[in-house]
Amino acid sequence: MGMNLAEKIIASHLVEGRMVPGEEIGIRIDQTLTQDATGTMAYLEFEALGIDRVRTKLSVSYVDHNTLQTGFENADDHRFLQSIAAKYGIIFSRPGNGICHQVHLERFAAPGTTLLGSDSHTPTAGGIGALAIGAGGLEVAVAMAGGPFYFTMPEVIRINLHGRLSPWVSAKDVILEVLRILTVKGGVGKIIEYGGEGVKTLSVPERATIANMGAELGATTSIFPSDEVTLAFLKAQGREKDWVELLPDPDARYSRIIDIDLSSLEPLVAKPHMPDNVAKVREVGPIKVDQVAIGSCTNSSYIDLMRVAAILKGKRVHPEVSLVISPGSRQVFYLLAQNGALADLIASGARILECACGPCIGMGQAPPSGGVSLRTFNRNFRGRSGTADALVYLASPETAAATALTGVLTDPRELGEPISIAFPERFPVDDGLILYPPASSEGVEIKRGPNIKPLPQAQPLPEVISAPVLLKVGDNITTDDISPAGAKYLPLRSNIPALAEHAFEGIDPTFARRAKEAGQGVIVGGQNYGQGSSREHAALCPMYLGIKAVIAKSFARIHRSNLINFGILPLTFVEEKDYDDIQPGDQLIIDLKDRLGGEVLTIRNATRGTSFKVRHNLSPRQKEIILAGGLLNYTKKKL
Amino acid sequence: MGMNLAEKIIASHLVEGRMVPGEEIGIRIDQTLTQDATGTMAYLEFEALGIDRVRTKLSVSYVDHNTLQTGFENADDHRFLQSIAAKYGIIFSRPGNGICHQVHLERFAAPGTTLLGSDSHTPTAGGIGALAIGAGGLEVAVAMAGGPFYFTMPEVIRINLHGRLSPWVSAKDVILEVLRILTVKGGVGKIIEYGGEGVKTLSVPERATIANMGAELGATTSIFPSDEVTLAFLKAQGREKDWVELLPDPDARYSRIIDIDLSSLEPLVAKPHMPDNVAKVREVGPIKVDQVAIGSCTNSSYIDLMRVAAILKGKRVHPEVSLVISPGSRQVFYLLAQNGALADLIASGARILECACGPCIGMGQAPPSGGVSLRTFNRNFRGRSGTADALVYLASPETAAATALTGVLTDPRELGEPISIAFPERFPVDDGLILYPPASSEGVEIKRGPNIKPLPQAQPLPEVISAPVLLKVGDNITTDDISPAGAKYLPLRSNIPALAEHAFEGIDPTFARRAKEAGQGVIVGGQNYGQGSSREHAALCPMYLGIKAVIAKSFARIHRSNLINFGILPLTFVEEKDYDDIQPGDQLIIDLKDRLGGEVLTIRNATRGTSFKVRHNLSPRQKEIILAGGLLNYTKKKL
Repeated sequence: MGMNLAEKIIASHLVEGRMVPGEEIGIRIDQTLTQDATGTMAYLEFEALGIDRVRTKLSVSYVDHNTLQTGFENADDHRFLQSIAAKYGIIFSRPGNGICHQVHLERFAAPGTTLLGSDSHTPTAGGIGALAIGAGGLEVAVAMAGGPFYFTMPEVIRINLHGRLSPWVSAKDVILEVLRILTVKGGVGKIIEYGGEGVKTLSVPERATIANMGAELGATTSIFPSDEVTLAFLKAQGREKDWVELLPDPDARYSRIIDIDLSSLEPLVAKPHMPDNVAKVREVGPIKVDQVAIGSCTNSSYIDLMRVAAILKGKRVHPEVSLVISPGSRQVFYLLAQNGALADLIASGARILECACGPCIGMGQAPPSGGVSLRTFNRNFRGRSGTADALVYLASPETAAATALTGVLTDPRELGEPISIAFPERFPVDDGLILYPPASSEGVEIKRGPNIKPLPQAQPLPEVISAPVLLKVGDNITTDDISPAGAKYLPLRSNIPALAEHAFEGIDPTFARRAKEAGQGVIVGGQNYGQGSSREHAALCPMYLGIKAVIAKSFARIHRSNLINFGILPLTFVEEKDYDDIQPGDQLIIDLKDRLGGEVLTIRNATRGTSFKVRHNLSPRQKEIILAGGLLNYTKKKL
Repeated sequence: MGMNLAEKIIASHLVEGRMVPGEEIGIRIDQTLTQDATGTMAYLEFEALGIDRVRTKLSVSYVDHNTLQTGFENADDHRFLQSIAAKYGIIFSRPGNGICHQVHLERFAAPGTTLLGSDSHTPTAGGIGALAIGAGGLEVAVAMAGGPFYFTMPEVIRINLHGRLSPWVSAKDVILEVLRILTVKGGVGKIIEYGGEGVKTLSVPERATIANMGAELGATTSIFPSDEVTLAFLKAQGREKDWVELLPDPDARYSRIIDIDLSSLEPLVAKPHMPDNVAKVREVGPIKVDQVAIGSCTNSSYIDLMRVAAILKGKRVHPEVSLVISPGSRQVFYLLAQNGALADLIASGARILECACGPCIGMGQAPPSGGVSLRTFNRNFRGRSGTADALVYLASPETAAATALTGVLTDPRELGEPISIAFPERFPVDDGLILYPPASSEGVEIKRGPNIKPLPQAQPLPEVISAPVLLKVGDNITTDDISPAGAKYLPLRSNIPALAEHAFEGIDPTFARRAKEAGQGVIVGGQNYGQGSSREHAALCPMYLGIKAVIAKSFARIHRSNLINFGILPLTFVEEKDYDDIQPGDQLIIDLKDRLGGEVLTIRNATRGTSFKVRHNLSPRQKEIILAGGLLNYTKKKL
């Protein structure tokens, strides 16, 4: 029986389990990546595992989130990350070197390998044919220690791309179309595999845009074949040695096949406040736009920004639009500075930001109150921009550049003659801001700032949980909702006691106080609980505040793992209607004396005198983790 | 009798008073400038004056402080400033266009004119031969309304520059030498006028560096002649029509003459935590440096950054140094992008920030805890960098670039062969981010965000002040100490009730709470109270918190005016030793029944049963202001 791309890579890395969708498997991880907002915690966890040096083929620590540095915390974190990388054999990408996913694609990602990253957009490297998965920092720490990465064997959906994109339509429009079809829940428990003749018309960075934003489908990852186009990209990066051909077998099977005719697509936009709220630009019409932001791990490659520069050249940004552009990497930035495109961008009136995540994670450039911001980014969750009542739209760089000129949402096809940007045969490779670790860690001292606090310890599973429902929330709660992002909170990422004060702040500012008063508690959620960013802080903070269980209709994959890893029970309703009968404040009693032996648990609602059933869906390994008091304890025992 | 430069400009603009040092004079203001951190308040004040349109020859509103935009407040402020500029006939320089002083020098400042700016570094334009003075926002508002600007006629100090700077020694070293000689108090009540053959060897941006940092002397302003060098600069900016020759008369008189031999200077550095704590670089020695920051209104001109680029070209920033560079203006940034220097900077590993004040005002790039930061900026006050325990050194761009390469404080003369950068004959002039106001303000709507709060009203002078000493501080208290700067506080500049919560936070975090509890209070200060930034928030916040009087050994000029303008009595000890006998908490009784008729007041210390004498030194006009309940009320009556 033939294998698809995902199965081929999983099969060659399988350590435990069977490749049957829905069953837990463990795979060997070749590469890991972290960024600074999740990385400090991941390396504290790695340190706690007591290993001398990473056991992966390659581990890279990036700094791209906290680059505004409005307090000492960020620079301290960078110093800590630089020193701990040298200590444990990790490559360190300095601040200013660019966004982890863009840099990893350029310099390290390789077809046929496995990559685990403590960032939900790690699947970007699927554009080069890697099996690249986002995970919590602790899981990445375990992978760095040589442990397998466990996840549920996903179904694989095949998306066949036909034809070729029309002028002014680009990769972002492809993934917005996929989001329109599948929605933000459509990828849960699935891998999205791209194929078809149309794939050959897309460069690696374009494929990476599509793979990147597959995270918004809730997918485990997305993957493209490794072909001649991949080889050309690797050659241009001086990395042809990393190339292997990787194609699905002709008789590979998929759980579903979706066909998309590239030539039929037109410029699309995701409207507030979800990436799947997709419409055609011309149907949304010329709404007034206050800000246009170009960049992020989704759309900041050389080709993206060259197209933007070509559109803006000799023209002027609209006087009521603030246009901000952040190049994806120092390589991109350097090229634009060298070939004059950056001068064109500056001349047009664009504001040039550092190569970093920047406004995409609410790290600066918050729009005005009630303002409309059009962004080439991947998420438009409410408040993520830093402005609670801003209206954020997501679109392609072409749509963004056209809109920056007119001041209203503009279909780039109105710009007239298409532009053509040649893909460089050879990129100027300069890894000067990439520091390789010394061969020996002797004498390397780890530098810790005062904001870097020890990791809180998970508690062992009690015999009985008797706790109030501290919060009841609806569907699609994001990890931004649970532990806010943005410039105010990101500097606290190494300091759980301080960060926990802000848990659920946007939904209920009293949550942290009430949780501490109650001592322990339960959260009730709807569908797709914990979507979005991979940050384990969204589990660590509730754990720190005494949350023992989350009962939801369904969970986002990474967040569910994070809950388990920090000793919080993720439970799903057997009957979804039972959700309706629970109210905030209800006292729930969860009997755990059988140590999760049964698949179904009965929870008693002592306040209402009722009962309802939930499933834990825990694999034997996950049960052991919960019983051991979290993944850290579990792994230490195993190693 | 011949006149010096300062007298010539003052004489041609004199509206009231006599040009006798120590007497109050009023002058007509040709140009005004504001920046966003002081500007929102200045325009609220202008609005309160009820005038239709500015009455100056030219008024420019810049945005250069709050450009990180970590919340909606900044973008709202920018929108407010843009709309109010259009309404009242003010030129608006958009975010991204650069630092007010650099842009003003390039595009607007003119020899022989008067310029009043709500920023303490307004004297930068003295480099082009303007009489450029920093003031509180309310004074700038009054000037925009056509009112005179009042100040004490200063003494004029002449600094004769001889010879020519040696290679690797630059304008920054000149002003550091002046600071070493005169100290941060040496310029109080004085104008510094530069002359001598050596002046001809300095370009306008170099002169501007020296004039800029004259603010750190406490000087009213600094001024250079307008000569052939000035003409060449104006020609290069396409502004030769703005040139007039302006030289002192041969028999001009000065209160003091200082001679500096440029050829004898060597690279200098101001050590923590004052700009006058100056030493030779080679004497301080190779201390380890964590961060190097190049930019700010002091040193971010084309020549400055071209020298840095030439030093860094083909080399690599030290792995333990974070080098950040912010170009001074979009013109500078564009030139560097166009001629390849920016590509050289990026290749060296520099992090490129937006053209704005940035780290100089603690707006990002806070150093690590206890870190050493070498900066080309103008102030190294404790905590201003955003990191309370950082050690900030000030030096030239050449010293900064050399240090970025070695990782330790480095005399640039160690770099070897001198570099030579040609001054461009013609700058690429493009005012695309400068918006001119419409001829008519009809239909222009002012856009106010929710963080823009109305101006608090000053209270009329009571008959008797009976209030406790809420705080007793030492010498050289800065306006940063009184109302902190930095990324956390700057967004609150349009919201006095919120900002006032942080008054004196670094000195005594309980101050705001205690002041509100007490209802009213008095502050006791040492020498040079209120030095540094011109922000009137350092008067507005204490006023809002009920401060009625500040009793100090001496005051910085701008802050003293701000106190008067907001109805707070600035009193100086007749006998400085009385300072020692007052303790925090003492209840002071100040009898004001004679409405400031006498020059000397007797204050009773009810707690200790003692009395001491103070002077108010108020001019008749200033008495009227205080009695009218502040400058706003006074001016409304006058207009």
